[in-house]
This record gives sequence, structure tokens and C-alpha cells, in this order.
Amino acid sequence: METTATFYTGNKSFSVEQTTPTRPGPGDVQIDVAYCGICGTDLHVYLGHMDKRVGDHRTIGHEMSGIVSEVGADVVDIAPGDRVVVRPLDPCGKCPACRRGHQHICQNLKFLGLDTDGAFQQKWTVPAHTIHKLPDGLPLEHAALIEPVAVACHDVRRGRVAEGDDVLVIGGGPIGMLIAMVASRAGGNVTVSEINSHRLDMADKLGFRALNPKDVDVAAAINDTTGDKGADIIFEVSGSQAGVDLMTAVAATRARIVMVAIHAAKAEVDLFQFFWREIEMIGARVYEPEDYEEAIRLVASGAIDAETLITDVQSLDRIGNAFAELSGNPKAMKTLIKCNEVA
Amino acid sequence: METTATFYTGNKSFSVEQTTPTRPGPGDVQIDVAYCGICGTDLHVYLGHMDKRVGDHRTIGHEMSGIVSEVGADVVDIAPGDRVVVRPLDPCGKCPACRRGHQHICQNLKFLGLDTDGAFQQKWTVPAHTIHKLPDGLPLEHAALIEPVAVACHDVRRGRVAEGDDVLVIGGGPIGMLIAMVASRAGGNVTVSEINSHRLDMADKLGFRALNPKDVDVAAAINDTTGDKGADIIFEVSGSQAGVDLMTAVAATRARIVMVAIHAAKAEVDLFQFFWREIEMIGARVYEPEDYEEAIRLVASGAIDAETLITDVQSLDRIGNAFAELSGNPKAMKTLIKCNEVA
Repeated sequence: METTATFYTGNKSFSVEQTTPTRPGPGDVQIDVAYCGICGTDLHVYLGHMDKRVGDHRTIGHEMSGIVSEVGADVVDIAPGDRVVVRPLDPCGKCPACRRGHQHICQNLKFLGLDTDGAFQQKWTVPAHTIHKLPDGLPLEHAALIEPVAVACHDVRRGRVAEGDDVLVIGGGPIGMLIAMVASRAGGNVTVSEINSHRLDMADKLGFRALNPKDVDVAAAINDTTGDKGADIIFEVSGSQAGVDLMTAVAATRARIVMVAIHAAKAEVDLFQFFWREIEMIGARVYEPEDYEEAIRLVASGAIDAETLITDVQSLDRIGNAFAELSGNPKAMKTLIKCNEVA
Repeated sequence: METTATFYTGNKSFSVEQTTPTRPGPGDVQIDVAYCGICGTDLHVYLGHMDKRVGDHRTIGHEMSGIVSEVGADVVDIAPGDRVVVRPLDPCGKCPACRRGHQHICQNLKFLGLDTDGAFQQKWTVPAHTIHKLPDGLPLEHAALIEPVAVACHDVRRGRVAEGDDVLVIGGGPIGMLIAMVASRAGGNVTVSEINSHRLDMADKLGFRALNPKDVDVAAAINDTTGDKGADIIFEVSGSQAGVDLMTAVAATRARIVMVAIHAAKAEVDLFQFFWREIEMIGARVYEPEDYEEAIRLVASGAIDAETLITDVQSLDRIGNAFAELSGNPKAMKTLIKCNEVA
């Protein structure tokens, strides 16, 4: 039976096609995708920045939830009807990173939905090792946030946020906002630095101190409220030179800077401050299995305000419109694509 | 009784003067300085780069050893005749850094020999809390290396070097060479990257792999010998843009970069690699008391090859010549000034 799949076909365009879904191999699981969120990386693909990596006929999408429809012969502990999310990483298992237990940053990592076909389709087949089961009662719409929440959980874990820490999140997009939520849950006093007024409003409504660096000197403001100490943990999520300048200017002695953003070009960094204040900078990329488990707990418990973050839901056949609207709308935060009527 | 003190008087000049030494206050200790090494920071002072901080009539010097000549009324456990070194840090005890136990990076730190008078004189008076006693049998000439060895111990401790780690030291000056020695002692497989042929020869003789980045691609060479893994711990001691480029190019997944160098200007940093490989960068400045104790143990045990590192010893009245010769001689490593005939 044919089902619907979408394909990025280059230059801000998608095709919506009827295809025969991939049958699961012995170690695979096939899923009826319920929802799949649009990630910042998907927007980069849409805008043509990643054509070399994804080609011109690729099903993208990885922030998904769904229900298992079929499992391969060798798959145990997963059965049709299970409500699941996918941790979309397929490591090689052989490189130096894998051998040291860092499979999530495998030197030959395949990211499902970029290096292989992804979840913006009705039936998605993935390796069974990528599956995490969902608890009863967790709405599949909310579950589509688990992947980006797992990113935030990984970032906060890498930053070792603890009770009472003064935390600054530089950049209040979806990942920044989720980091703010997870860091707050970990006991941090969270400030968000952001220039988009809609995102500042959202940060404020979510209970964070929201500062616009175009209006106030954020480092001075943090020093004022911390007795000239500065921020203990800084998440650089902006990917901007201004963010890189702020991250060292605001840092307390022995502060930790978590490098979340993807800086495509080299940035000018005040290395003197690293020496002078013994600052640490810690790179953080994707997630490990325990981050997924924590993200599932947080979304299931209601600690993540999913309703505020999900600003739009569109149908699979309108994927092109959904991407166009998201990329042009400063009020948008997270758009979900509804791929099947399984929810 | 008057004794000899030297003063940096601006623009590559020193005066040698007969002065009345400072009497120790109730909490102070007066020391007959035996030897005092010339630090890279002292060379910066000499070249006029730090005039704003040190003024134009300052006794500099802090890499010293000596014998206690007098103690203040409130000083316990230190007596005339004790052989000692000074940890030249005077923290305020009140700032946020001090309150968190990071006195060595106090936000109002006074560094003895820069912010107050230092050790290039015959009798030096310092707060008793800065004193570390030396074990019997440790030559005072070798003990003048304890301060820079403590820097290296702090750097290696911050980098968490362990048995079998592949270590790259970028920059083979005195501190880089000491880091190489201390990291090797901690179990690291040490490579030194350096462009000065004399220093490359010394690194080779000391048993390290010595590479000249002008001749070989250091990152490729390290990848070749580590099965495409890269370096686990990188010490950036060069203070150069080329060193900053190399530090990310050579880093293994989850590598740790220890930022030892003082980068006076912002550098261009490949932040993408921090994200992609989850690299950490850790600032390291001066030392804590335990680093001094470790440095004393290492120098006393002979683990530090003091005889190779000390390339010249000059008398106190020849301090100007000593600085001039050190700054112009590519073969020089560590010059000591002999301040008293107490050794």
C-alpha cells in the first residue's frame, strides 16, 4: 500500500509523493509518524545551506513521535502499537569516539533525517536501537518536543547546573527557551538574553528574567544582581559574534560556558578572560540515551510548557507552506507537522 | 643596615640601589633571597608592556628561593633559618571569587613582585601566609624553579592528565617545557610543538616528541600516531593565532584544551569544533597551595630536570645585562639572579 512521503528537492521546495514505504529489516522498526517538529537544522536544509550533505531528494525531519506499525524478526521488547520517539543517531561503533563510549559524537555519525531519510512521512523505518518508549498519558503532540528537550537536557548536564547557580541563556529560540526551562528545573536562576521582542515576551511569561542586549548592558545587569560575581553558567545559543562577546564579559570566576550554537565561521574570542577568570567552555552536541530518558520524564511531568512552545500545527501535505511561514514569522517558535491521524 | 635592591625604572632599565630593607610587620616574614628566576612576565615588564601596572620604580621578581632572616611577632611555625619559597599571591578574602574558595584568582588579587615589591633584592618581606617550607637537601638554586613548576602542576591538574593520554603542548618555552615534564610524569604521551630549533632540541633531549609546525602538519602527525583519534589534552602556551588554530584542529572528541597563554588580543577560534567534538577549554592561571606542595615534591625528587632548564645564573648587580641577554638569546631557557651568598 502506498503512503505519503515528502522530499526536500532543493531551493526552498518540497515534493509530496505517494511511495511504497520501506519494509523493516531484521533489526528495524517501522513507525506511523504522528507529529514531527521543524528544527532549526531543517530550516537550514530548506534554505539550501546543506545541499551537499542532504542532496536534492531527501525526506528530512527528526523531532518526531509515533506508533510502531511493524517490527523486524530480530527485534525484542518493541511491538506494534507501542508509542515511541526516535533518538535519530546511527553511530559506526568502530571509530575512536565510539570506542571511548561517545557514540553520540561518533566520527562517522549518521544523523537520521539528514544523512538518511527522516520523519516527514507517514511511515518511517529506523534501527531498533534508536527507539525510546513513551509512558501512558503523554500526548504524542507534546512528545514531538522530546528530541529538542533532550538537546536541552544534554546541554544543562554538560554545564553541570545546580541549585542556586546564576544562569544566562544567550539566544531565546526554541533550544534556548528549552535550556532555560531545564536549567530552571535544575535549580538555576535563569536570565535569557534575546533581541526578538516576541521571544522576550515569551521568556518573561515563562518566568525568566528577559533582557534585550540592544537596550541594556547584560553583563552589567547580571553583575548588579550577583554582587559583582557574574553568571556561573552561560549557554551560548545565539551563534553570533555579539553572543560570543557577551559570554566572556558576563562570566564569573570559574564560570562554565556551554557552546550550543553552530558557529559556521570562526569567531573572535576573548581568550584572556579564560585565563584570567579560569573560565571553562564546554562543547555540547545532540544527546546521549540518558538525556532522552530525562526529556521524556520532563515532558511527561508537565515541567516543559509544551503548549506555549508549540505555536503552529500543519498537515503533511502543507509542509512547504509550513516551512515558508516559520522562516518568515518572528512570532513563531515551534511548528509541528501532523503526519498521520494516529494521535 | 642597608642592603641591595633593584628597581625596574622603565624602558628596559633597572637601577641597583642600597636601601634600608622593610622590617616585617606582625604577620610578615623577611627572607634573605637566594635565587630569583626571570619569568616571561618579568620580561614583559622589562620591555615596557606593563608600565601602567608596575609604575617606574618597582622591585620585580617572584620565582625565588631563600632563607628566613626575621619573623613578625604573630608568626608561628616559621623561624629564622628556615629554607623557603614564596607563593606570591595576596588575595582580598572578600570578593565573590575568594568567598567561593578561588583565592588564587581573587578579583582584587595583588601579585607580589608586580603589584607590590618583589624578590630581585637581598631582603624581601612578605605575608607569612605566602610561605612554603622546603625539605632538607633541595638545593636553593633548583628551588627557584618551584614557582613556574607550580604553574605547570596547576595546568596539568586543570587538564586532568591521566595515564596513557595523548598530550600536545603548543609552545616549548619554560612553562611549556615544565608542563611537558609534569604531564609526562602524570602518565601522558607528550608531544611539543615549537618553532625555535634550540627548544625543539631540548624537548627532544628531554624525551618528548618534538614537532616544528613550520615543517610538519602537527594535527595530521598526531592523528597518524593515534589512529585518527587526535590529542586528548592540549596545552595552548604559545599565545599565537597559529597555536589557537592548531588547538582545535588536533583535538580528539571530548578533548580538553588548557588555556595557559596570555592572549592580549582576541583570537579567531573555531567554535564549530567545540560543538562538533564536544571539546572543553579550561582556563588556568597561577596556582593553588596544593600545586606548590606538588611542585616542591617534584623538584625535590629530581623529576624536574632543573640543570637542563637553568641556562644562566647572574649576580644581582648585573640584572640589566641578564634581562638584555635573555631577551635576545634564542638558546636561553631560564636565567636565575643570585641575590645573596646564602646558598
